[in-house]
Amino acid sequence: MMSRWIRCVIAVSCFSFTAASNAGNGASELAASPELPRQVILIIGDGMDDQQLTIARNYLVGASGRLLLDTLPLRSTSQVLTIENEIGGKPVYVADSANTATTMATGVLTSRGRIATTVGDNQPIPTIVEIASAAGYKTGIVSTASVTDATPAAFATHMSLRLCENPETMLGVTYKDIFLGNCLGERKSQGGPGSISEQLASSALDVILGGGMKHFAMPIEGGTTAVVELAKSHGYQLVTSTAELQSAGTDQRLLGLFSPGTMPVRLRAQNGRSAEEPKPSLLHQVHRYLGEVTLPAAMNCEPNPAFAKVPSLKEMTDAALHQLSQDNTRGFFLMVESASIDKQAHKRKPCGSIGEVEQLNEVLDSALTFAANNPHTLILLTADHAHAAQIVPNESLYAKYTIPVYTPGKLARINTPEGAVLAVNYATNSFPYEEHTGASVPLFSNQVGVGLVPAFIAQADIFHISRTYLNLDP
Amino acid sequence: MMSRWIRCVIAVSCFSFTAASNAGNGASELAASPELPRQVILIIGDGMDDQQLTIARNYLVGASGRLLLDTLPLRSTSQVLTIENEIGGKPVYVADSANTATTMATGVLTSRGRIATTVGDNQPIPTIVEIASAAGYKTGIVSTASVTDATPAAFATHMSLRLCENPETMLGVTYKDIFLGNCLGERKSQGGPGSISEQLASSALDVILGGGMKHFAMPIEGGTTAVVELAKSHGYQLVTSTAELQSAGTDQRLLGLFSPGTMPVRLRAQNGRSAEEPKPSLLHQVHRYLGEVTLPAAMNCEPNPAFAKVPSLKEMTDAALHQLSQDNTRGFFLMVESASIDKQAHKRKPCGSIGEVEQLNEVLDSALTFAANNPHTLILLTADHAHAAQIVPNESLYAKYTIPVYTPGKLARINTPEGAVLAVNYATNSFPYEEHTGASVPLFSNQVGVGLVPAFIAQADIFHISRTYLNLDP
Repeated sequence: MMSRWIRCVIAVSCFSFTAASNAGNGASELAASPELPRQVILIIGDGMDDQQLTIARNYLVGASGRLLLDTLPLRSTSQVLTIENEIGGKPVYVADSANTATTMATGVLTSRGRIATTVGDNQPIPTIVEIASAAGYKTGIVSTASVTDATPAAFATHMSLRLCENPETMLGVTYKDIFLGNCLGERKSQGGPGSISEQLASSALDVILGGGMKHFAMPIEGGTTAVVELAKSHGYQLVTSTAELQSAGTDQRLLGLFSPGTMPVRLRAQNGRSAEEPKPSLLHQVHRYLGEVTLPAAMNCEPNPAFAKVPSLKEMTDAALHQLSQDNTRGFFLMVESASIDKQAHKRKPCGSIGEVEQLNEVLDSALTFAANNPHTLILLTADHAHAAQIVPNESLYAKYTIPVYTPGKLARINTPEGAVLAVNYATNSFPYEEHTGASVPLFSNQVGVGLVPAFIAQADIFHISRTYLNLDP
Repeated sequence: MMSRWIRCVIAVSCFSFTAASNAGNGASELAASPELPRQVILIIGDGMDDQQLTIARNYLVGASGRLLLDTLPLRSTSQVLTIENEIGGKPVYVADSANTATTMATGVLTSRGRIATTVGDNQPIPTIVEIASAAGYKTGIVSTASVTDATPAAFATHMSLRLCENPETMLGVTYKDIFLGNCLGERKSQGGPGSISEQLASSALDVILGGGMKHFAMPIEGGTTAVVELAKSHGYQLVTSTAELQSAGTDQRLLGLFSPGTMPVRLRAQNGRSAEEPKPSLLHQVHRYLGEVTLPAAMNCEPNPAFAKVPSLKEMTDAALHQLSQDNTRGFFLMVESASIDKQAHKRKPCGSIGEVEQLNEVLDSALTFAANNPHTLILLTADHAHAAQIVPNESLYAKYTIPVYTPGKLARINTPEGAVLAVNYATNSFPYEEHTGASVPLFSNQVGVGLVPAFIAQADIFHISRTYLNLDP
């Protein structure tokens, strides 16, 4: 059955696309000079909703300050959509990074955990990277996660399950004896594309930068050479340090892998703390109107020493922009992800998320500088889904009621440089990792996007707008 | 000490204001025809952050549908700022409706609980309603709350404590024997302005519509006549039903009071349900990896019968627009609040909040229709602060781990018309009322606002933009 819901999605998508095509400055600029080199820089803050942005703003520049992204001329809303894993399936109201990255990369909705494949029949969906590359554009992906992680993977590979990042996990992934899935039918030996790292190693990407060496260090399926050697055989130069990154030549395509898995984050709480449970007194456990509660002590954020040993996201982005723009008269598509806004939120570590929003703003600075020198540069900055963290009152709105009022979840109280205490709540579950949440998310753009990006879009329109801007519409 | 933070606020405010004055269509239109009647319609969804908007969108029009507000051409972000109750005080990261309404009504930051008064020395701050009224504009406030409640009150009255809504509460407010405050020094007998209802009764407002009859039914301070009689003596006609509202003449100012306190909401859950605690099995209480959990049964939203007995927010708005535009060559300022998005969220009642977002969209429809016939109409639609509700996965992201994964807070699972289950979490505290949260909030505008409203503003700029649009700058 073709459901009413699916028809709605198509209609909405067309609507936005029409709006983008018909509107103001950007569109006319596009029509006037289609021959010029042009580029799209898509910056994704994983899990970066307005709670995360406000947490970071409060800490980094003060409650009344402005992040660089706040100064962009265009703010829109991206409608995050997910569907069940069957054709004609119902909507699912909370996404994961695999299906949202798929939507941004392909314009097609899919189910949680999928990497650029369709629901139900598991067909590969062409990505903006593949389309742009085939048309002669250079392409790149940069992430603070493993480059095989869901967000970067969905721009250049295809898989039914995001966990199949390397040849070994294709056979099955277990965690504490719990079986989480496999991708047996997608192995090369079964006529499939092979694992995500193998697909990246033989992809058309010009630049791949991030973490995830462990997924490239193991042997290719049915062979003895490492996946990284497969990449070299396809013309990639490998760099593994900041120095190597910055001295890399532009005569070969660039694969940079700077950590075994996710790259170290910039900030952490002292003593490695995360949000903690408030501790009610014994009397309060007897009756909720009695006794008192001890909230977690306020924490300071501090630099994470491990961060100094890897390139920053900005350094990776600068290298990518240098590589992609060198001797390039056509242009490029570059996706840059600040991944650990999300990963640190899952772990209830707000200092970590704050530092990764800071990294994202530094990437924006690089992108704006590049755009200042290369005017046909569309910058889109967005999140993929909302997340668990909430700013809650450090002093309850009900403090006068003289009874303990506190979250049933976990709480971090952060000393901010402006001398106040920022309280952040995580309470979507009691599992070791918090859940995502379902709100629509921010989308920002530079002046080039004004007239191209309406005030409200479906997340799939990020693909459509990018494709249109690069003159790649079919 | 004048803190660095306060200086930042002023600088930021000026920045936005300059941006608004210098920019595009709206500004030039303003300069070209200052003599025309013009109006500002400020629509406030109390507590209406992107989680609330997405909850309502999912339920009312489906996950891929569009609310009317989604079709507005301009989306901006409003930076919510609160300060401690002392001059030079530090920022407070979560607001209440009193201080945020004060900021929107006056352009000045204040502390939680304050109604258009300054921190520390408790001085009244001129409001946009007072400034516009003094300049010959008509003015109105409409709310589904008591008209004496924080948001409407802050546009036309002044008080140190929002609870002092009537002559009796001026003497002190207690709740279950807990003393919450008084306003003794602000009584008329002490040279003060008197309670909020008394101030409204003698205000310059042309239209006051909403709930709150109980605050007008009691005797004025030191007298025996009811506050509502004071209002009549100041030239207000009183209406108390939809029929009376719709047949009210325009020869007298209009006071409509349609319920004792907050007006009934449109939607409720069957059996009056709210979000409920998941119920872990005994085995799960022994160890978190064992046993199972029973989530609250999915609920249906249904019409609240009491709602049919009062005018809708749209009906009140239509009456207000009729009153304010009649024989008016100058223009008007109208504030319309959908109050119970917030009040129902405090009570963990998502069906209730959804219906009030629907009411707000109907108000927008009226405002857009009015603007279509009266082109110099600036519509600003925003929230005052973020709130507790979060859309969480109905099926956990960690469902494969085969252990119970569920929120430590309270959960509502709503059957949506498109056939899925929308899970909404409330977990900021275990008190009978949830907390607000601290994210920045959405701000939307019609075409008139394009060029006047930047992509990111301080909440105080809502005052500045309104004042500029009405040619009221000093």
